[in-house]
Amino acid sequence: MPRFLRPVRRKIGASPGTLEHVGEKKVERVRIRVIDYSPESLEEKELSSAEECSSYRDTRTVSWINIDGLHDTNVLAKIGEQYGLHPLVMEDVMNTNQRPKVEDYQDYLFVIMRMLFYDPEKKHVTSEQVSFILGRHYVLSFQERYGDVFEPVRERIRSTGRRIRKQGPDYLLYALIDAVVDNYFVILENFGEQIESLESDLIDRATPESLQMIHELKRETIFLRKSIWPLREAVSALERGESSLIKKGTRVFLRDVYDHTVQVIDVVESFRDMVSGMQDLYLSSMSNRMNEVMKVLTIIATIFVPLTFVAGIYGMNFDFMPELRWKWSYVFFWLVIAAICGAMLTYFKRKRWL
Amino acid sequence: MPRFLRPVRRKIGASPGTLEHVGEKKVERVRIRVIDYSPESLEEKELSSAEECSSYRDTRTVSWINIDGLHDTNVLAKIGEQYGLHPLVMEDVMNTNQRPKVEDYQDYLFVIMRMLFYDPEKKHVTSEQVSFILGRHYVLSFQERYGDVFEPVRERIRSTGRRIRKQGPDYLLYALIDAVVDNYFVILENFGEQIESLESDLIDRATPESLQMIHELKRETIFLRKSIWPLREAVSALERGESSLIKKGTRVFLRDVYDHTVQVIDVVESFRDMVSGMQDLYLSSMSNRMNEVMKVLTIIATIFVPLTFVAGIYGMNFDFMPELRWKWSYVFFWLVIAAICGAMLTYFKRKRWL
Amino acid sequence: MPRFLRPVRRKIGASPGTLEHVGEKKVERVRIRVIDYSPESLEEKELSSAEECSSYRDTRTVSWINIDGLHDTNVLAKIGEQYGLHPLVMEDVMNTNQRPKVEDYQDYLFVIMRMLFYDPEKKHVTSEQVSFILGRHYVLSFQERYGDVFEPVRERIRSTGRRIRKQGPDYLLYALIDAVVDNYFVILENFGEQIESLESDLIDRATPESLQMIHELKRETIFLRKSIWPLREAVSALERGESSLIKKGTRVFLRDVYDHTVQVIDVVESFRDMVSGMQDLYLSSMSNRMNEVMKVLTIIATIFVPLTFVAGIYGMNFDFMPELRWKWSYVFFWLVIAAICGAMLTYFKRKRWL
Amino acid sequence: MPRFLRPVRRKIGASPGTLEHVGEKKVERVRIRVIDYSPESLEEKELSSAEECSSYRDTRTVSWINIDGLHDTNVLAKIGEQYGLHPLVMEDVMNTNQRPKVEDYQDYLFVIMRMLFYDPEKKHVTSEQVSFILGRHYVLSFQERYGDVFEPVRERIRSTGRRIRKQGPDYLLYALIDAVVDNYFVILENFGEQIESLESDLIDRATPESLQMIHELKRETIFLRKSIWPLREAVSALERGESSLIKKGTRVFLRDVYDHTVQVIDVVESFRDMVSGMQDLYLSSMSNRMNEVMKVLTIIATIFVPLTFVAGIYGMNFDFMPELRWKWSYVFFWLVIAAICGAMLTYFKRKRWL
Amino acid sequence: MPRFLRPVRRKIGASPGTLEHVGEKKVERVRIRVIDYSPESLEEKELSSAEECSSYRDTRTVSWINIDGLHDTNVLAKIGEQYGLHPLVMEDVMNTNQRPKVEDYQDYLFVIMRMLFYDPEKKHVTSEQVSFILGRHYVLSFQERYGDVFEPVRERIRSTGRRIRKQGPDYLLYALIDAVVDNYFVILENFGEQIESLESDLIDRATPESLQMIHELKRETIFLRKSIWPLREAVSALERGESSLIKKGTRVFLRDVYDHTVQVIDVVESFRDMVSGMQDLYLSSMSNRMNEVMKVLTIIATIFVPLTFVAGIYGMNFDFMPELRWKWSYVFFWLVIAAICGAMLTYFKRKRWL
Repeated sequence: MPRFLRPVRRKIGASPGTLEHVGEKKVERVRIRVIDYSPESLEEKELSSAEECSSYRDTRTVSWINIDGLHDTNVLAKIGEQYGLHPLVMEDVMNTNQRPKVEDYQDYLFVIMRMLFYDPEKKHVTSEQVSFILGRHYVLSFQERYGDVFEPVRERIRSTGRRIRKQGPDYLLYALIDAVVDNYFVILENFGEQIESLESDLIDRATPESLQMIHELKRETIFLRKSIWPLREAVSALERGESSLIKKGTRVFLRDVYDHTVQVIDVVESFRDMVSGMQDLYLSSMSNRMNEVMKVLTIIATIFVPLTFVAGIYGMNFDFMPELRWKWSYVFFWLVIAAICGAMLTYFKRKRWL
Repeated sequence: MPRFLRPVRRKIGASPGTLEHVGEKKVERVRIRVIDYSPESLEEKELSSAEECSSYRDTRTVSWINIDGLHDTNVLAKIGEQYGLHPLVMEDVMNTNQRPKVEDYQDYLFVIMRMLFYDPEKKHVTSEQVSFILGRHYVLSFQERYGDVFEPVRERIRSTGRRIRKQGPDYLLYALIDAVVDNYFVILENFGEQIESLESDLIDRATPESLQMIHELKRETIFLRKSIWPLREAVSALERGESSLIKKGTRVFLRDVYDHTVQVIDVVESFRDMVSGMQDLYLSSMSNRMNEVMKVLTIIATIFVPLTFVAGIYGMNFDFMPELRWKWSYVFFWLVIAAICGAMLTYFKRKRWL
Repeated sequence: MPRFLRPVRRKIGASPGTLEHVGEKKVERVRIRVIDYSPESLEEKELSSAEECSSYRDTRTVSWINIDGLHDTNVLAKIGEQYGLHPLVMEDVMNTNQRPKVEDYQDYLFVIMRMLFYDPEKKHVTSEQVSFILGRHYVLSFQERYGDVFEPVRERIRSTGRRIRKQGPDYLLYALIDAVVDNYFVILENFGEQIESLESDLIDRATPESLQMIHELKRETIFLRKSIWPLREAVSALERGESSLIKKGTRVFLRDVYDHTVQVIDVVESFRDMVSGMQDLYLSSMSNRMNEVMKVLTIIATIFVPLTFVAGIYGMNFDFMPELRWKWSYVFFWLVIAAICGAMLTYFKRKRWL
Repeated sequence: MPRFLRPVRRKIGASPGTLEHVGEKKVERVRIRVIDYSPESLEEKELSSAEECSSYRDTRTVSWINIDGLHDTNVLAKIGEQYGLHPLVMEDVMNTNQRPKVEDYQDYLFVIMRMLFYDPEKKHVTSEQVSFILGRHYVLSFQERYGDVFEPVRERIRSTGRRIRKQGPDYLLYALIDAVVDNYFVILENFGEQIESLESDLIDRATPESLQMIHELKRETIFLRKSIWPLREAVSALERGESSLIKKGTRVFLRDVYDHTVQVIDVVESFRDMVSGMQDLYLSSMSNRMNEVMKVLTIIATIFVPLTFVAGIYGMNFDFMPELRWKWSYVFFWLVIAAICGAMLTYFKRKRWL
Repeated sequence: MPRFLRPVRRKIGASPGTLEHVGEKKVERVRIRVIDYSPESLEEKELSSAEECSSYRDTRTVSWINIDGLHDTNVLAKIGEQYGLHPLVMEDVMNTNQRPKVEDYQDYLFVIMRMLFYDPEKKHVTSEQVSFILGRHYVLSFQERYGDVFEPVRERIRSTGRRIRKQGPDYLLYALIDAVVDNYFVILENFGEQIESLESDLIDRATPESLQMIHELKRETIFLRKSIWPLREAVSALERGESSLIKKGTRVFLRDVYDHTVQVIDVVESFRDMVSGMQDLYLSSMSNRMNEVMKVLTIIATIFVPLTFVAGIYGMNFDFMPELRWKWSYVFFWLVIAAICGAMLTYFKRKRWL
């Protein structure tokens, strides 16, 4: 089954909220990193155990706790307990095929998104689930593996005096979501180039391999749509939502993310139109070729079949065939042949087959 | 008529609420099983007659009465009376081709869903209607036949101390609905594999049998959509509804079911896109093949038809054909033949037909 | 023009409310029948003139006045006057190509539906417009011709003690609408069988006649949709409407009709999907056949055209052709022929054309 | 560019409200006709200048001023001034490619519609823009040329005692709109006949000309949709609007017009479905024909190519070909030929190609 | 990648509001021009530096400051500061692939649109982003390069006594938007002509080049839709919005722009229908041609292949072939040939292939 259609599923009938990692195990060890900052202070370190997290829960500073790796049920369960998260939230964090969504649990907001990466070698898009918990003084982020698109955000936090240092955790959440959405544009650019190049191939010269490539692009488009569409609604909910966790000043920025999401969706929809037009292009192109092949066959057959018949006649062995005896017969034969050829060629010219 | 298009219908013009089983009779005997539990107590038994049900109606404990088999009008009518159900409810329970829906009758909630099973041998999906009645202290469930997806729920009830034991009948209803929806994921997985395998067959080598298989997948997809789509609205109604029978704590869980339903629908829609793309793939694949066949024909005909004409000429019996007498004619003939072949092959090479 | 696309139209520019029968005249004589009942009493008779109707207008009993035949402007105008109906209502009753709808005129409700019949011989669906007026104490029903689907309702009224006898005219209206909708299921069943049988024909063996049949099914589907779709909205309006003419108890039953209507529409939509898939199936099937035909042609031509060329060579009359003189030439010729045949057949085998 | 796609446009950057006629000039002279009536009185005359209009503005009687011809900016500007119309209104009146719409300017309502005519000779639909201004005591109507569908309305006004004479200008507006919509049915009838006739042609015998006809029908359908769709919303706005210019009694009639509009749209949509199905029908029909052609070719080639080979063999000039000497060879040859023919024909029979 | 699919993107992870020009640098120098007017006064000049702008901010007169060129971050940042614009606004102004939108920042309104130009030589549409800021006493407009569609608006401002001179900046904003939308009609006209001409080519004679042209038109249509669709919502927001910056009198004019936008979209949608119909037209046209080619081949082959067989027979060298000795054999042979030809031609006539 195509990877992106593999649906989430806890063990059938297990209690809801049963923690269980669903998906590929992508890293060896769960890594927990904290960045704790205020306009004046900055602390950045890697935690060795889940227990240490709890100390960052109620500090006045903004704490961003980033967890890489979702397979270790114990670790995640502990974090969930310390931050008082609903079991269903932790279940969704660990089941890595969720639909993007935003859920408001009064004390905290829960956001799920998909981070997309473009693999330039295999020429296809891979994806990773990233979940955020926004609390009063902290942001938790859960990723499937090491490596993310948040490095520039970290850089901005590290340099004193940037706006992000002066804002609360809601602005941090915005910055993270924005980084994910911004990365979509890179994907789209690469994807668009692929479409572009296949299209000019198709017009130039369609091959059976093109068919396979169209098919793969179609799938990727379905995958992109599935990953990005629901985000629109989610970001909109975040922007218009009534959660007191998000300050008014931050909403303007969320509206900007919303605009970007809409733009991304616009482009994905255009891609979809173009990819679905390709199938038609392919068929038309094939039909053109068939036509060309048929014309060659028809021209050849139409010219030589009558000629062969004429030659056949004078190959007959009837005792009484006066033409065979005439002196100029053979020359005349060639004249007839030439006349037939000429007539045929004129006919094809007029039909514009030549 | 395809099984899933056979619509419900009571005997034309019969009074509404006339009880009559519509559908296949799937079991011999109606079986009534009760699980009655509270945090401390647990009773599980099979009832021998419908009359015994009434005692579970107003107990403080949670009673789950499960009825397997819908063909016995008497038994069902009695249950309906004892629990004060509207005749239209009982009619819907017995007509086994209902659309998933939720109806609020103040004193009780009425839920209809479809339970899906995948038959791995025949490679197609079968379905069974399951109805739930949620009352103040009880849940009634009606199934068409023995065997269901509720066994894990029963297990959770049986083990003391699990959350389900501490919750009311609304949570039980949630657990049952959740079990049904969870099972959809299994169906989707199997279905997805079928699509996947057919697709690679199509690209590799389409046969007329593929056409039939595409057609069957199309039907199954229509069937899945028809069974699952209306559930979205129904679960959403349950979650947002104002019925006092569903407690606030349970609504969070229902939202989770709702999310799962939306995921299932997403996947079904992706399947639909893919299956409908297959038809195009098939046509393109056929068109490719035709092209290939035509090319072989054209190449052979285009080479040999002119050659045959040349051979025909020197088979003629004209008395005066000087070439026939020349010594090197025959050798020269072969040279001409070779030249024609060479020219043709070069032409095809340039057209990239070879 | 297809019968179902013939639109309604009063004489251009005639006053609105001008009574004029638009449609086929389907019966000779307008027939007026009354069933007047209360829980205790029952009167059933045929009226000889429109004037007699008026006496049933304000009785406390429920009166159902059924009019068969819409061509007689005088009779209908009189009825309209006696019951104080708006001229536009009577105009709609007589123009027999209306869209299903419900209109609330305070004192009475006006309902238009289409009654469908399946003609098993011609294998197509015919239709008849039926209009209802629901007043405080009466229901008027107008049909285009004798014969309807209401006989079972009449039976229920006739037998003392049935629920319908104890309810008001709103319940009667429900019962009539329900009878019409129930009848749709019969239509769908027959229609579904037709689709089913055509489909297996198509996969088995498509013929040009199939094309015509697909086309007819398409039309019938358009017709069904057009007749049934607007009913959904109409019944929903009836159920949720604020008219005091419909009691609360009856609304539950109307919700049931609404459910049935939605089911019918669901099935019609599935039919539509299937019929539109048939066109593709037909094309694919044709394409398969063409492929098969082409292969036979190609195989034959590809084998025999080269052979004929070889035979042609040794039919030439060159004086100097050493092979012609050798003793084993002819045997050798056959060996070459066999070799060519063998090579070709191997090639086709490998291409899987055989 | 197709006439119906030529969009409206004032001179780029001209002040809004700049009066300028956009469209074809269809009549020589602007003609202004007035019908001024009350239940008792009736006056009908042609005005010689725009100035005379003003006297009808505030009379208690209902005045219907009909202007034919929109090219004379002076005349129209004067009328606009006298009736205090917004410059944008007059601009829209004169730009004859407006979308149907209703605008409420407090003191008056502004309605734009398209009047459609069917040209039976050229078999296509022409259109004309008609605008209405409904004031307290008057209706202004602007048409592009002489000749309209309002004659029957005039007749009704002329005959004393008709309802229209007793109603206000809002009823007159209704009557005019109704006349326009009623006329659509005539168009649809003609159009439907065209579709019908083309369809049976297609099934019977598709020709390349059919393709062009399908294409033209497609365009006409696009044109019809474009002209009629927006009317639905407009009439609905009129019926539900809060303008005090429309009395409650008239709203019932407007609802009737709305119903008719919906019916018209329904039919247009059905036409659209049918026309778009025709393309498929055409392709299938072509595919059928191709199949038939190919079969004939294949049968002929498959029978005669092997026979020709056999004949070719015995035309060879090998010195040693024992068969040539045998007495019964020739007879035997014919038997072989007959056998091959028979085998081939049996094969084709079994394949059902014959 | 097609130019119009190149999405906006700031440097990944850069702070939001980071000013950076995204897009092609289209002019050398940023040019700032001011028109400052009141009913009585008019001042028009080019500013040499961004600092001079500030003086126009709070004057009572209406100031229109037009900036051509978006690549100079310094200049734009200064303008942004002086007018107190949100950093995100300035970011959007400089990223030149924005979606049309309207944003209300209390003190000012921010509007983004696309200005379209038709390049008659390359026969395709180019586009430029234009942004407006509407403040209490000023309008800022930002364009990518010199040259725009606003010249007529400037003319109207220059001539004393025109309505625009008496109105506030909201009317100026309207006039500018109107100029942009009006220009769309020119694009559509040119585009429509291209469609028209390609269509008649297709019906007349489809060539493989047509395929490429259809493809390009498809893309242009996607581009047009993408540029214009969102404008509808934006203008509607402007018209219905509650911003105190827009006076009631101006809203009537904005409604007019809205109408025009809807008309433009209507036409674009019709174009889309027509372009997508072209692909079908092309395929049908190709199919027609193939059919014709096949018929020619079949007719020739069907006539001459049997004839060649007959000739082949009498070319055989059997010792005993009585016909060869008969005197009239040869004449008789020709009669047979003529008979076969006649029969074939009659057959084709009847099949209507000739």
